[in-house]
Amino acid sequence: MERVACFGEIMLRLSPEGYLRFQQAGSFVAVYGGAEANVCASLAQFGLKTRFITALPSHAIGQAAVNALRAIGIETDYILIQGSRVGIYFSEKGAAQRPSKVIYDRAGSSFSQIQPGDINWEAALDGVDWFHFTGITPALGDNVTESVKEALATAHRKGIRVSCDLNYRKNLWTAEKARSVMTELVQGLDLCIANEEDCKSVFGISSPGSDIDSGNLNHEGYLYVAEQMRKQFGISEMAVTLRQSHSASDNDWTVMTYDGESHFSRTYPVHIVDRVGGGDSFGGALIYAKLKGFDAQKAVEFAGAASALKHSVEGDFNIVSLDEVERLMRGDGSGRVQR
Amino acid sequence: MERVACFGEIMLRLSPEGYLRFQQAGSFVAVYGGAEANVCASLAQFGLKTRFITALPSHAIGQAAVNALRAIGIETDYILIQGSRVGIYFSEKGAAQRPSKVIYDRAGSSFSQIQPGDINWEAALDGVDWFHFTGITPALGDNVTESVKEALATAHRKGIRVSCDLNYRKNLWTAEKARSVMTELVQGLDLCIANEEDCKSVFGISSPGSDIDSGNLNHEGYLYVAEQMRKQFGISEMAVTLRQSHSASDNDWTVMTYDGESHFSRTYPVHIVDRVGGGDSFGGALIYAKLKGFDAQKAVEFAGAASALKHSVEGDFNIVSLDEVERLMRGDGSGRVQR
Amino acid sequence: MERVACFGEIMLRLSPEGYLRFQQAGSFVAVYGGAEANVCASLAQFGLKTRFITALPSHAIGQAAVNALRAIGIETDYILIQGSRVGIYFSEKGAAQRPSKVIYDRAGSSFSQIQPGDINWEAALDGVDWFHFTGITPALGDNVTESVKEALATAHRKGIRVSCDLNYRKNLWTAEKARSVMTELVQGLDLCIANEEDCKSVFGISSPGSDIDSGNLNHEGYLYVAEQMRKQFGISEMAVTLRQSHSASDNDWTVMTYDGESHFSRTYPVHIVDRVGGGDSFGGALIYAKLKGFDAQKAVEFAGAASALKHSVEGDFNIVSLDEVERLMRGDGSGRVQR
Amino acid sequence: MERVACFGEIMLRLSPEGYLRFQQAGSFVAVYGGAEANVCASLAQFGLKTRFITALPSHAIGQAAVNALRAIGIETDYILIQGSRVGIYFSEKGAAQRPSKVIYDRAGSSFSQIQPGDINWEAALDGVDWFHFTGITPALGDNVTESVKEALATAHRKGIRVSCDLNYRKNLWTAEKARSVMTELVQGLDLCIANEEDCKSVFGISSPGSDIDSGNLNHEGYLYVAEQMRKQFGISEMAVTLRQSHSASDNDWTVMTYDGESHFSRTYPVHIVDRVGGGDSFGGALIYAKLKGFDAQKAVEFAGAASALKHSVEGDFNIVSLDEVERLMRGDGSGRVQR
Amino acid sequence: MERVACFGEIMLRLSPEGYLRFQQAGSFVAVYGGAEANVCASLAQFGLKTRFITALPSHAIGQAAVNALRAIGIETDYILIQGSRVGIYFSEKGAAQRPSKVIYDRAGSSFSQIQPGDINWEAALDGVDWFHFTGITPALGDNVTESVKEALATAHRKGIRVSCDLNYRKNLWTAEKARSVMTELVQGLDLCIANEEDCKSVFGISSPGSDIDSGNLNHEGYLYVAEQMRKQFGISEMAVTLRQSHSASDNDWTVMTYDGESHFSRTYPVHIVDRVGGGDSFGGALIYAKLKGFDAQKAVEFAGAASALKHSVEGDFNIVSLDEVERLMRGDGSGRVQR
Amino acid sequence: MERVACFGEIMLRLSPEGYLRFQQAGSFVAVYGGAEANVCASLAQFGLKTRFITALPSHAIGQAAVNALRAIGIETDYILIQGSRVGIYFSEKGAAQRPSKVIYDRAGSSFSQIQPGDINWEAALDGVDWFHFTGITPALGDNVTESVKEALATAHRKGIRVSCDLNYRKNLWTAEKARSVMTELVQGLDLCIANEEDCKSVFGISSPGSDIDSGNLNHEGYLYVAEQMRKQFGISEMAVTLRQSHSASDNDWTVMTYDGESHFSRTYPVHIVDRVGGGDSFGGALIYAKLKGFDAQKAVEFAGAASALKHSVEGDFNIVSLDEVERLMRGDGSGRVQR
Repeated sequence: MERVACFGEIMLRLSPEGYLRFQQAGSFVAVYGGAEANVCASLAQFGLKTRFITALPSHAIGQAAVNALRAIGIETDYILIQGSRVGIYFSEKGAAQRPSKVIYDRAGSSFSQIQPGDINWEAALDGVDWFHFTGITPALGDNVTESVKEALATAHRKGIRVSCDLNYRKNLWTAEKARSVMTELVQGLDLCIANEEDCKSVFGISSPGSDIDSGNLNHEGYLYVAEQMRKQFGISEMAVTLRQSHSASDNDWTVMTYDGESHFSRTYPVHIVDRVGGGDSFGGALIYAKLKGFDAQKAVEFAGAASALKHSVEGDFNIVSLDEVERLMRGDGSGRVQR
Repeated sequence: MERVACFGEIMLRLSPEGYLRFQQAGSFVAVYGGAEANVCASLAQFGLKTRFITALPSHAIGQAAVNALRAIGIETDYILIQGSRVGIYFSEKGAAQRPSKVIYDRAGSSFSQIQPGDINWEAALDGVDWFHFTGITPALGDNVTESVKEALATAHRKGIRVSCDLNYRKNLWTAEKARSVMTELVQGLDLCIANEEDCKSVFGISSPGSDIDSGNLNHEGYLYVAEQMRKQFGISEMAVTLRQSHSASDNDWTVMTYDGESHFSRTYPVHIVDRVGGGDSFGGALIYAKLKGFDAQKAVEFAGAASALKHSVEGDFNIVSLDEVERLMRGDGSGRVQR
Repeated sequence: MERVACFGEIMLRLSPEGYLRFQQAGSFVAVYGGAEANVCASLAQFGLKTRFITALPSHAIGQAAVNALRAIGIETDYILIQGSRVGIYFSEKGAAQRPSKVIYDRAGSSFSQIQPGDINWEAALDGVDWFHFTGITPALGDNVTESVKEALATAHRKGIRVSCDLNYRKNLWTAEKARSVMTELVQGLDLCIANEEDCKSVFGISSPGSDIDSGNLNHEGYLYVAEQMRKQFGISEMAVTLRQSHSASDNDWTVMTYDGESHFSRTYPVHIVDRVGGGDSFGGALIYAKLKGFDAQKAVEFAGAASALKHSVEGDFNIVSLDEVERLMRGDGSGRVQR
Repeated sequence: MERVACFGEIMLRLSPEGYLRFQQAGSFVAVYGGAEANVCASLAQFGLKTRFITALPSHAIGQAAVNALRAIGIETDYILIQGSRVGIYFSEKGAAQRPSKVIYDRAGSSFSQIQPGDINWEAALDGVDWFHFTGITPALGDNVTESVKEALATAHRKGIRVSCDLNYRKNLWTAEKARSVMTELVQGLDLCIANEEDCKSVFGISSPGSDIDSGNLNHEGYLYVAEQMRKQFGISEMAVTLRQSHSASDNDWTVMTYDGESHFSRTYPVHIVDRVGGGDSFGGALIYAKLKGFDAQKAVEFAGAASALKHSVEGDFNIVSLDEVERLMRGDGSGRVQR
Repeated sequence: MERVACFGEIMLRLSPEGYLRFQQAGSFVAVYGGAEANVCASLAQFGLKTRFITALPSHAIGQAAVNALRAIGIETDYILIQGSRVGIYFSEKGAAQRPSKVIYDRAGSSFSQIQPGDINWEAALDGVDWFHFTGITPALGDNVTESVKEALATAHRKGIRVSCDLNYRKNLWTAEKARSVMTELVQGLDLCIANEEDCKSVFGISSPGSDIDSGNLNHEGYLYVAEQMRKQFGISEMAVTLRQSHSASDNDWTVMTYDGESHFSRTYPVHIVDRVGGGDSFGGALIYAKLKGFDAQKAVEFAGAASALKHSVEGDFNIVSLDEVERLMRGDGSGRVQR
Repeated sequence: MERVACFGEIMLRLSPEGYLRFQQAGSFVAVYGGAEANVCASLAQFGLKTRFITALPSHAIGQAAVNALRAIGIETDYILIQGSRVGIYFSEKGAAQRPSKVIYDRAGSSFSQIQPGDINWEAALDGVDWFHFTGITPALGDNVTESVKEALATAHRKGIRVSCDLNYRKNLWTAEKARSVMTELVQGLDLCIANEEDCKSVFGISSPGSDIDSGNLNHEGYLYVAEQMRKQFGISEMAVTLRQSHSASDNDWTVMTYDGESHFSRTYPVHIVDRVGGGDSFGGALIYAKLKGFDAQKAVEFAGAASALKHSVEGDFNIVSLDEVERLMRGDGSGRVQR
């Protein structure tokens, strides 16, 4: 069975119950997640071997993060136990006109303090077929960027396929810094996941006439951007999520891939239970499809269905089975009770 | 006041909180319900005398099921206290493209072990005006089928009206077995509740051109099937729920009856809080309407309104009052606050 | 900074968890609120100085109400600690066709027993720029009406602007009694908030052809009524909320003001988390806009956005910031995650 | 089977979760109870026929109280549905040096507004073998006292045995008023339950050298008081609970009866889960013992064991079975797991 | 690192919140556990490699049990996915004089339907140093007994050490049946865990003058029984837990081992949070001590401290670290805050 | 009325529900507290004017901390809104032999980044009668130490009385650093709160023969240490808490003061609900007593009773009233229900 390794931070996510606002919270629901861990979780749910590489402190909150990964079958043997804190993010669920809110509290986490040489990449990537990271990881500091470079060098040497989700976070670094760093890291990727905003912010690639804030999707614009990305960075395949946000409660969700030709999934009207990790569930499902050799249209439909389902699942991880994704792909989205 | 007796199994239903999936559940909300108990509960809410006949073990979980019935005013004097377990079903709430899921764990329950002669039907049906059962009950075993036959014989002798909801469950018995058993049990029913799929699966009766999975409703098809059912089995009235499932969150809900002429209720766009027991609430309300002598159109509108409301009520039981149903029947579905 | 004083009752609100019905509740979520307190809360959230004037008993439940006000920064120095009970209201959340329900249990509360002279209005309104009350307050008894009159006289003497929300509650007093009392109290208001039903019930002012229950909004009708109100009572500005109730879950929400000219806000399709206090959040936001000198259209848009947001916030108080309202006013209602 | 009727108020009890104080409560656990209802509940748990006679409003909170009674098998046919509110009491659980606290909010309840003639006592006491009330009931008003007198007259005429728990509540009436009213009501009781403080406060009967606040129990004092009560009022049997309060968490619990001779139960060191209803559970168990004809020592041991167990049960009602009480009576208090 | 394999059933445990009784439960806390899984969990907590061998159904509840094992690091590769149900047990927490209660609902579970040959023991015990089972496993049926025999034969062949906890359950099989089956299975055990009652019930071995129900511990009696067990069955070492049950809330806890010489641990006064799994935590800790070569007194102190701590941990599994056990062993039981 | 200002950090405290361990937590109860905020809270509960001076970030979690202070009446006008995070501490409740655990996650908090000059101490201490800080504050960094020095200089100039609780935290700074910093800060304190361990660790002052870990209290040792502290640093009065930790559930609690003469409070056997903030509640109560001019013995009894009560209150703040403390002081610790 194929094995995927993901490298990134796993954080403690704290959310008020239901639709309560932060100020109203007398308790917080606690789950663990992060962009790369969420991809890893999707792949584990689909039955692949998965390995998560990160750093966590030796105390019980760090252990709880390890347990959360193990519970769904992710290998945690290459997690470094060092440093002093688990990164935290507070997440408040939006509704209707009130947007969801995230407050990051991740500075100084064990992962962000990782140093070049800390990870034995030769061992950590042993038996691995695919390596995944996101743009959040290098954004945490030059030290972490160096770790990513070590990983990429090892992956290259071992012939491991590599994917990256750009995931530009403006509160972590400037666009200039991101561009200078990411330009090197995305070279020759097998799969690059990005949205129009990422490409524009990080690489200054945008289509004429595009207006991200308008809420209107511009298919041609996406293709133009994807084509530019492929050409400039020698990327094999670009993948994009297209979210039309009608409100914090209701979105339309489409995904596409572009490998020289474009492939669009069905559009799903998603009534949102939890949108965090929607993009990550797309990435995870697409990596699965690639590893399993699905043809391009099947791959995009699989990843579209999987990520549509994520919007109905609480928490960061996309707790859905292969069978559930395939049912939805086949068109059974009516929501009849499954007995 | 009229009294209705229902015979069937009441189970412990265990549901994760909110929209959590089974794998995520650290606790389960516990309610008690079952197809026949739910009908009984509706009738009790509307103020009729009701009696539930079943078997439950002598331990505290069995007692809790008795208490749940008594709490809403159902007579429990004819419940047998025997056997060793309460049947359980796990119920996970769906959302958007993710369907609701039910895992049954009912084998070996006290009710399924009931033996012919265990129930003193002469006493149990004393003072009863209407007897209701469903196709789930005989599906639990030949022993239970025999009990149903005893009940029907007694009801016949006493001139008690009888209704049945076909409720075909393919995981309990085969279509062949169901047909051979149900053919006898539905003869001469005063009221038979069924959906198109039930009739097709159990009796092979379907309308030309019908496609259940398409999600499109075919009114003529329903009438054809209802007419066939009436003719073949000497049933006085057929009743059908017509659910159009747009997603696990939103359905359109219509009900109809056919007594030679067809009667359709208004269609309600239901935003689902809990759809379990929707069909049962229809049956309960229709029996009420029959006992109270509502004309056919009023009856179907009453049952349509009652069962539309069920979709907004948590749990198996339709906790709505006569007054609430009548308000909705009269057209007040705007959801203004009632002070 | 401007200071607003509000005079009214703050009650303990008890709500079943989620969508449970009263009969199903094993616990009640407890918050504190009331028409005038909710207005005060909105103004406090926007950063104004606010003072709430009421009466509460000396026990811990009374203290909890004080704490709830203080927590969001409301001055509570002029709350009388006397009497024996906190008024209670039970609130059940509706969904789809099932309306929300309120059961009032407020008779005999400390506030309703307030006597003329109990409050030192001279001190209580010292440093106050705006005074707000609602029609619920005088409805509680002639003793309370006298207190309102004392307040109004003091406000008049001090040149404090005054607003009133008619808030007619038919279970507190008759239309006749309301008319005789309110006619005096609304004379010369700077701002009067009302809905069409209030004006009709209390003052017999309605537009030709209006049908409140139809759910259809009649803009001309509103203007006619507003104009009549202004003329008859010398009111500077009328303000109205226009709720179209599609179901208990979904409403369209528009607000308008009329100061000789009419101003309508954008219409928001609100998917309801908690609709209690929607009108109060409108009043609060409008008072803010008036105090800050917003022009009429900006004022109505501000108040419209603020009160649309309230529908997505649990509890009576509109826990939203100035910044959040302004974003929505500027058109960002797409619900993208704010990081 | 014997049937016991109890007459009194059933209230909504609202308690913060766990050991939270009132000011900290974001929600309240809701159960229903009251001195007489609790006695009734005990008898229902032991398998007797029981009937609760009270008044409750027609709204859903009143209905919930009815349901709570029905759930454990109490007959509710003679409950009057009238008036406007359910009495409430807030209950905060103490621990160690911090005492439990109760805030009553019961004024104006449906029960307190009951009028002479409202209850058809002839019917309500039909088929009844024992009638129970407490001193709280007449304390609610002269109107309620009249109802008690009607009940007692009917019981006398029908030869029904009668018990009363003095339950003096100083916040409901003065000692003088209590004495003047209770002197009539306790004449000739079959069973009178009281503690030393009740007898002293209401009837001025105390033993020389007794010091209630000292926490030291004075067995001779109890006997003296019991003997005085029997003589003065022609009471057949006195029953007393002897609580030694070491802290809010730990008490020693003994009960005694005196019918000319004294009988003391074993003393139980109770580690308190919920002490509300401890005395009522004693009363219920003792009535059971009397109806079943237990000899005096067995009766007091049965009632002692039952009421010791109550301290380990959440809520007002003593949810324990006959079998559980008998095991403890027989000396199995070791707390081994029962599988 | 050493690896331990455990063979047995893992069940879904459903417990009312806090001290609520079964009849009062509106929800159940859900954890997974069982005698052998609990031993495995202790060993995993201490850092050993552990493997759990069982059978679970393919549905989501079965998966949740797998996840619970994986979360704490147990290898689950040899779990059979077959059959239709997860065994359930309901567990109610006792307090003071009210004992804890367990209702088993495990008939027909996937594990109980396991057949000889289902498990590839050669592979399942590969790399294993110690094999543990309990008397509950063979009690589930002759088919399961055969599986145990297969396991023991394989373990013998591979030179794997073997331990068994007698764990006699009278509701699963008779003493006669237990004796006939267990006599074979305990032959030559490296470690046998039992209590006096087990030995007496199953093998008829008891010391003169012993009285299990008296609650008094009889050290000499234990030694006599242990010596008999060793002699009759060629067992290397006997291990016993000595619980003195003062109440359901407070026990004294001592453990002993006997390998020809007796070794007693310190006695811990345990204030009980959750006593389920207390004995299993003893077994797990003792196996750890054996594998690590602790001397006999250190081993018994380690296992005593570990199992005393279990009584303060919610759930079946003993979630304590090596470090925490060692601190307690060293005498730091004062409960000072660890910062 | 007197006003007390406290300067320190307020943190978000996250605790698993009940007795769950960190690894088991699916949610965290969220309250806000900290050594100085807790003192402030006690004083606010007793009715004094209080002002809390700290720094908090501008986001909603920071606002929630402000709200928590305001709710109980603390003035928050001098809280700086700056920096990026609220310090966090995770708190796990111990039981029996399992100690409570705290994991600090406070590095980089807004408060720890405070710079000299940030606070306008002239204004912040205007109208203040007493200033309180603890040794935790300077331990956060030299920048914070400078702020403390600014505060002390201003307090000195204004004639404000000053108290300090040594509160040595070895994970924040070394003993050497603490000594060098604290030596200056404690000079001439009006009140210094410390335990034996603090004095020994920070100042090397210990009594001969003292053994902190033994759990035995050494009254003479305390006096010796207190006397040394007074002499060396010109402190007016020393105050000490004496906790005997029998287990994580049960402690004995005594407090003493020494102003040349020693004063010991009664010893309370505390059954622990939440011990966090026990020492702070002592400090708060003692400052109250000093401000109110209680004589030394009354002061120590008041502070002893208040802090004993804290152990029965959930959260950091001591939510008890003056009246409740005084009742306990007067000897009513029996835990009778207060109605």
